[in-house]
Parts: sequence; structure tokens; C-alpha cells
Amino acid sequence: MSACVFCKIARKEAPADLLYQDEWATAFRDIRPVAPVHVLVIPNKHIASVNEVEEDDERLLGHLFLVARRVAEQEGICQSGYRLIVNNGSHAGQVVFHLHLHVLGGQRMRYPMG
Amino acid sequence: MSACVFCKIARKEAPADLLYQDEWATAFRDIRPVAPVHVLVIPNKHIASVNEVEEDDERLLGHLFLVARRVAEQEGICQSGYRLIVNNGSHAGQVVFHLHLHVLGGQRMRYPMG
Repeated sequence: MSACVFCKIARKEAPADLLYQDEWATAFRDIRPVAPVHVLVIPNKHIASVNEVEEDDERLLGHLFLVARRVAEQEGICQSGYRLIVNNGSHAGQVVFHLHLHVLGGQRMRYPMG
Repeated sequence: MSACVFCKIARKEAPADLLYQDEWATAFRDIRPVAPVHVLVIPNKHIASVNEVEEDDERLLGHLFLVARRVAEQEGICQSGYRLIVNNGSHAGQVVFHLHLHVLGGQRMRYPMG
């Protein structure tokens, strides 16, 4: 997936404000933040959306939660709270088709969240 | 965690509109839906929030995505799209302190989602 911008960010071939990276996942700030803290956590491996996940990906997908928690700690929002979102497809407004977990915090989130 | 309502649902000791259950996770309809499809996916094991996840939970947490995808298929929203949300703590409006993944679909979701 050489054309995928998130693959490029994971390979450090495209610029991003990186907060964390390990062998499996990368975290960086969203370029169009909708909250004081708005970070994206992606698997380094290209997975287009949740529709494409496979059983072999379970541990990798769970790892995204661990990285999100780590980012929340770094950003100081563990106690105040944060929302994790994965948008899939048209109705959810998914823009980049490389699975990504939004970490949103630093303000009270809206309800309902749909 | 005998007092936790989601633990009780997972043990079938409290009523819920169950859509799926296996050894690790349970999916059931939210009693206060905010979208035409609004399902909760929980680990059967009690984990209060993402703040409490541990490395040993990675596979279990990833499994929640697989169950969410299965629910989306059952509900016929894979192609139209869906939003997955995990609320953590006060700012996100977490109400039940047993980690749960909201699966929302059947309508166009709002943007921004914070």
C-alpha cells in the first residue's frame, strides 16, 4: 500500500507529529483536531477498516487500546476522560482507508455520540 | 464484581437483548439507543475502563473488534458504515464502569464526533 498516507506516516516517509511508535503501532496528532487532544493510533500494517480485520489481527487490534491508554497518560487526560472512536465506511465518515483509532480528550464530549 | 450490571448480563443473570455471546465477549442492544443500530460489545471479564487494561488483555480487546464486525454483518450495516466508540471517564460520559464498545449505525453519523 505504497500510496496510503498512513502507511507512509508509519514508515516515516510522510511528515506527522509522532507521539509514539513501536513495532506494531504508531500514534500521531490529527492534522484537523476536533478536541484539545486529538491523536490517531494506527496499526503499522495496512488494514483498510474494521470490515477487513481477521482473527490473526486480534492481538494487534487490542494493542491499539494499550497505545491509546499510553497516549492518554502522556497527554494527561486519563483522569478527566477520553473517547476512542473508529469510523468505518460512509455513514461514519471514514476518510482515510487505513484503520485508525481516534483518541479525543481535553474537553467534555457531546452526547449522544452518534 | 457481582454488583456490575454488565457482568450480570454476561452471566445471563440480568435481562438483555443478546445478539451474540462466546467465551470471551457478549453483544447486546443498548437500552437507550441513539441510532437505528446501537449495540454494546463487552468483555465477559470485568475491566472497568481503558485505564485498567493490561498487556495480557490485548487479545481479548482485539476480539471485541471481531465481535463488533460480526454484529455489523448481522445488522446489515457493513457496507453503509458504522462507528465504534469507547467512552472512558467523566469527560466522555462513561456511565457503566465495565468497558464497552458501542457499535452505532443505520444512519449518517455526526461530525465532528468529539
